[in-house]
Amino acid sequence: MTRNEIARDRIPVAVLGATGAVGQTFIRLLRDHPWFRVAEVAASERSAGRRYADATHWLEGEMPADVAALTVTPCTPDSVSSSIVFSALDSGVAGEVEIAFARAGRFVCSNAKNHRMLSDVPLLIPEINAQHLAVIDAQRKHRGWTGALVTNANCSSTVAALPLAPLHEAFGITSMFIATMQAVSGAGYPGVPSLDIMGNVIPYIADEEPKIEAEIGKLLGVVNGNAIESAPFRVTAHANRVPVEHGHTTCMSIGLASSATPEQVAGAIMAWTGRDEAMDLPSRPHRPIVVTTEPDHPQPRRDVMRGNGMTVTVGRIRRDELLDVRMVAMGSNTIRGAAGGAIMNAELLVTQGYVARP
Amino acid sequence: MTRNEIARDRIPVAVLGATGAVGQTFIRLLRDHPWFRVAEVAASERSAGRRYADATHWLEGEMPADVAALTVTPCTPDSVSSSIVFSALDSGVAGEVEIAFARAGRFVCSNAKNHRMLSDVPLLIPEINAQHLAVIDAQRKHRGWTGALVTNANCSSTVAALPLAPLHEAFGITSMFIATMQAVSGAGYPGVPSLDIMGNVIPYIADEEPKIEAEIGKLLGVVNGNAIESAPFRVTAHANRVPVEHGHTTCMSIGLASSATPEQVAGAIMAWTGRDEAMDLPSRPHRPIVVTTEPDHPQPRRDVMRGNGMTVTVGRIRRDELLDVRMVAMGSNTIRGAAGGAIMNAELLVTQGYVARP
Amino acid sequence: MTRNEIARDRIPVAVLGATGAVGQTFIRLLRDHPWFRVAEVAASERSAGRRYADATHWLEGEMPADVAALTVTPCTPDSVSSSIVFSALDSGVAGEVEIAFARAGRFVCSNAKNHRMLSDVPLLIPEINAQHLAVIDAQRKHRGWTGALVTNANCSSTVAALPLAPLHEAFGITSMFIATMQAVSGAGYPGVPSLDIMGNVIPYIADEEPKIEAEIGKLLGVVNGNAIESAPFRVTAHANRVPVEHGHTTCMSIGLASSATPEQVAGAIMAWTGRDEAMDLPSRPHRPIVVTTEPDHPQPRRDVMRGNGMTVTVGRIRRDELLDVRMVAMGSNTIRGAAGGAIMNAELLVTQGYVARP
Amino acid sequence: MTRNEIARDRIPVAVLGATGAVGQTFIRLLRDHPWFRVAEVAASERSAGRRYADATHWLEGEMPADVAALTVTPCTPDSVSSSIVFSALDSGVAGEVEIAFARAGRFVCSNAKNHRMLSDVPLLIPEINAQHLAVIDAQRKHRGWTGALVTNANCSSTVAALPLAPLHEAFGITSMFIATMQAVSGAGYPGVPSLDIMGNVIPYIADEEPKIEAEIGKLLGVVNGNAIESAPFRVTAHANRVPVEHGHTTCMSIGLASSATPEQVAGAIMAWTGRDEAMDLPSRPHRPIVVTTEPDHPQPRRDVMRGNGMTVTVGRIRRDELLDVRMVAMGSNTIRGAAGGAIMNAELLVTQGYVARP
Repeated sequence: MTRNEIARDRIPVAVLGATGAVGQTFIRLLRDHPWFRVAEVAASERSAGRRYADATHWLEGEMPADVAALTVTPCTPDSVSSSIVFSALDSGVAGEVEIAFARAGRFVCSNAKNHRMLSDVPLLIPEINAQHLAVIDAQRKHRGWTGALVTNANCSSTVAALPLAPLHEAFGITSMFIATMQAVSGAGYPGVPSLDIMGNVIPYIADEEPKIEAEIGKLLGVVNGNAIESAPFRVTAHANRVPVEHGHTTCMSIGLASSATPEQVAGAIMAWTGRDEAMDLPSRPHRPIVVTTEPDHPQPRRDVMRGNGMTVTVGRIRRDELLDVRMVAMGSNTIRGAAGGAIMNAELLVTQGYVARP
Repeated sequence: MTRNEIARDRIPVAVLGATGAVGQTFIRLLRDHPWFRVAEVAASERSAGRRYADATHWLEGEMPADVAALTVTPCTPDSVSSSIVFSALDSGVAGEVEIAFARAGRFVCSNAKNHRMLSDVPLLIPEINAQHLAVIDAQRKHRGWTGALVTNANCSSTVAALPLAPLHEAFGITSMFIATMQAVSGAGYPGVPSLDIMGNVIPYIADEEPKIEAEIGKLLGVVNGNAIESAPFRVTAHANRVPVEHGHTTCMSIGLASSATPEQVAGAIMAWTGRDEAMDLPSRPHRPIVVTTEPDHPQPRRDVMRGNGMTVTVGRIRRDELLDVRMVAMGSNTIRGAAGGAIMNAELLVTQGYVARP
Repeated sequence: MTRNEIARDRIPVAVLGATGAVGQTFIRLLRDHPWFRVAEVAASERSAGRRYADATHWLEGEMPADVAALTVTPCTPDSVSSSIVFSALDSGVAGEVEIAFARAGRFVCSNAKNHRMLSDVPLLIPEINAQHLAVIDAQRKHRGWTGALVTNANCSSTVAALPLAPLHEAFGITSMFIATMQAVSGAGYPGVPSLDIMGNVIPYIADEEPKIEAEIGKLLGVVNGNAIESAPFRVTAHANRVPVEHGHTTCMSIGLASSATPEQVAGAIMAWTGRDEAMDLPSRPHRPIVVTTEPDHPQPRRDVMRGNGMTVTVGRIRRDELLDVRMVAMGSNTIRGAAGGAIMNAELLVTQGYVARP
Repeated sequence: MTRNEIARDRIPVAVLGATGAVGQTFIRLLRDHPWFRVAEVAASERSAGRRYADATHWLEGEMPADVAALTVTPCTPDSVSSSIVFSALDSGVAGEVEIAFARAGRFVCSNAKNHRMLSDVPLLIPEINAQHLAVIDAQRKHRGWTGALVTNANCSSTVAALPLAPLHEAFGITSMFIATMQAVSGAGYPGVPSLDIMGNVIPYIADEEPKIEAEIGKLLGVVNGNAIESAPFRVTAHANRVPVEHGHTTCMSIGLASSATPEQVAGAIMAWTGRDEAMDLPSRPHRPIVVTTEPDHPQPRRDVMRGNGMTVTVGRIRRDELLDVRMVAMGSNTIRGAAGGAIMNAELLVTQGYVARP
């Protein structure tokens, strides 16, 4: 059986915003996906009608030949037939487009920020909160959709939330401080001008701190009836851009309801395997979180590709002078924190019966 | 009057550890100093007896010709005659050497960490705590010294403390978080290997977090009898190395005893001029702290040389979600945070009558 | 006499394309110019009518307050009254705009590539070829202009040509290779995306190699009647972009008509002072070329600001295995290789009587 | 059959200098090698007797567990039993140690420079010059060795030589100019201090240009009786260090005996498959050279891992203004240009019958 024959049996999926940096990451990660194949690529009017290879300034590695040959379609449900639709759209257009697709019966896995904080829209990290899918029924009923919309979190929120989940489950988080050092790939392409960031730090990323402060709570929240309720602790964030290509590093100080030593905290993280629903998803790494004991790790350049970019590495778990515990967490902003996270969410939709297997 | 004639009227000073990176910064900054001239350079046994130009791998700009011609002496009071002695020594040797000089009647302005936290040794930033010099009498009496020892703080502590001083005076600091992003020049030379830091973050600097946590309180402390008492608030620090050449960036979340708005905090910092004793020191910049309103500043590469490297730039003063106020402070680790700070301390010793003017 | 009173006596000049990266460098360099003051700033329709401070994303240091307050005018001779006009325009628009100004009696000192290679347009580096101004009479007559147009060379051509001039004068250049490693500031702002250049080399700069190959010959050419004739040697160029902020580094292998040793070559460069006409121009550095004997210099980050960015540093003068001599030359692409060069050209127009002194 | 059982059937090899940066690359690349397994690790006296994991500051990825547990032995034939010995030794010690091993009957594949230019020591790139192994008989006879010594070339020489081989075969190279931009990993660890190279170019690498100038000719040379004779063309080299992590970029201008167009040159490179003896070596990449038509490639960060770091990427093949053709070649300095090249040489020793297969 050739690669193409295998591919025909996989579930066809569409990528909206396929020509941009995030869209390209979707296409790279889906190249050899066991369940999905990229059947459709959609983008702005400007690109529609052109060959994908001609419409795209490809950034990394080689473009898969089958996708290169696809014709770019407009971002409308009429032009796209796939049931599963990945949205790599800019927030400027994602809002209405994603709703149109969900209304038209499609399962939208969105990386855009627009709908993340709606109480009936899951903000999914399958290992943490697969059970949040329960609000989809209410979402459909309330909004009159035949499809559904799920989202993944901001890249920094994702990296932070993974090691926070076992802490919240074991000890209860009461408050936290987070300072991020974020890679330039988080800004897309062309993104950050080299004159701004080479040998420099920019201590500001537009709109980033409020996202981190709101999303972490929702990721660790509970389903209450038809709505997801955020975990009730406060987060204060400092977001910085640093001259790193890939990988967001986060420094966290965390207050706990039940006091715990650094050893207990490390133990809780190491023992954690997360939700059963996530166990057999193809994108789930062998270990969603790895705790390193090297004193000067995690480091983005050296640890970012752990678990094919789906594992968050945690280090320097130590006592905090003010709250309870300090640590550093680092993970891939483009894979776990963006396209890879959305793909894993789609896998969960399949295993939970929302989308038919082929 | 030629440059050499002027130089003869200036106070001769010695630099201990003159061949290293910090020692070189002393020599660069003292090149055209109005009160001091480098008359003696001392270093390890290995360099002693050689011409300074031959013993030194000079790192930046041009070596001053008069210093180049000096013969390196050993680091002992017998070999060095200057009253004012700048210590750029490594902490491995600074401890005993500095004591030997102070005992021998010299005024040691040290950049080393060894004696910073002793209660009768001033940890000086003249604008903040010139009055801490008062403990020198006790220091001499207690230790039987005819000279004295003053220190400057760790580079990150210094950058943070300057804008904290007006806040502590106006509102009373009760607790704080600080996350630093520190330049490679802070590690000396050869320092950080390029393979370790290019395109990377190292979320650890040996011994740095405890220094920051202890020194900030002492810098903002009070004289109580014969001792300096640290300000009683807690500090929790996250120290990171980033691929920046010069300039340490610090993100701070600060709790205040008297609640204040970000506007009030900015106002307090902008209105602050610091201790009168510091007013006319040659190294005092026109403005010790500048508050920028540009949303994405301070940035190390662009703001580090403000006030010839003696001004700390503060930005992004905003409400904190957990404590009271957040902000970013950035300043030169090699100038204000090291050699420039020590030189300003020596200037204070002159104006306060500890060392005779020429 | 205040700074403003002095300024009123200086010659008013205009900067076309004032809001861009090169335009900003003109404004920074003219801030304290002894002869010129920026009286007018012109830019595209989009910016015209706005305050300069509001129309400009200022990149480095502080914007001069008097320029900040100017109203941006359109780039037409009707809207601009200054006799001396600096063109920092993009080549897409510079062609016609510069002609319009020259026709309207203005002295245009252009940094754009459009007219550089015309035989009646001087491509000026005053120390090398001040005598090329002689073709201006022919230029005016032939084109019916009452003003004139002079240009400065491409940044890499400029850095290379300065040390080549003494070699060509002393030994006669017959052929040369040049490989450049160019800073990102050469691409303007936003210029090179950080994702493209961090930790990378891009071995291509659009349109750059032909410019270097043609301009070096013209810079070292002679006036023959009404035309400048390029020096008749061949140049082959390899242009590369490297992750450096400022300073273009060039490696050259040079063939000579009269064979010379590396020592003789170094001697010729060190002895050279260039054309007398350039001697007293305010922007002429004390030494237009410095030969360093440090084995691993020139280096862009450490040598680029020599002579306030107007000095080219040359090193590693050694025998070539194929031609006669090899060397490395490095200089500022934004100052000597762009705005600073154009300002020096305008100074030459003043001392040579083309423009009246105030 | 488990990984360990497979490993027992593989040929045991030793790595000399195993704790350094190059030694570590050997161990990483040999991890899953189909024919070889690391059975012994040798290093300096300081490390001998310690567990490899304890004696080594491991730089990248995870240390193979079986190697971690090995005890480091001294670098003497008495302490090492493997027939195949990889030398990652510094040139300061490699000279005598390698001779001792060859005399003691071992097959030494050396990455050190010491013996590369001896006429009876092959300087091997199997695709180019597998036939140079013929001098081993003379080497043994002449030197009284029962083993043998083969070497791989300097990293830059290797990257350049691969695309030069088809040109030399097809058209005859008569002269060439090469400018390199070399990654910091080429300097080992700790190697280049970050303060020296961040945002900078160092236009000098000690001892590098003569190596490149001599080695390229030998790589493309012929066997004449008992000696390898270098190809008789002249090379002039400019070696530069740039802030790139991995991958050396080389710009070349090449003179040819039989004139050829850029299209013919590209065709010759693309058609070339190299020596038959290399065809089935496990480390031979599918394509030893790839010609890219992207105008701004090859780029180190984006192309260095092509063919698992064993493929050299060539681009920008174009007419030269002085000689015949210009091009850019880029390849991995740590893999093809060091450890990977040496491993492929050992594979050739096996297939050519010098070392018995298991």
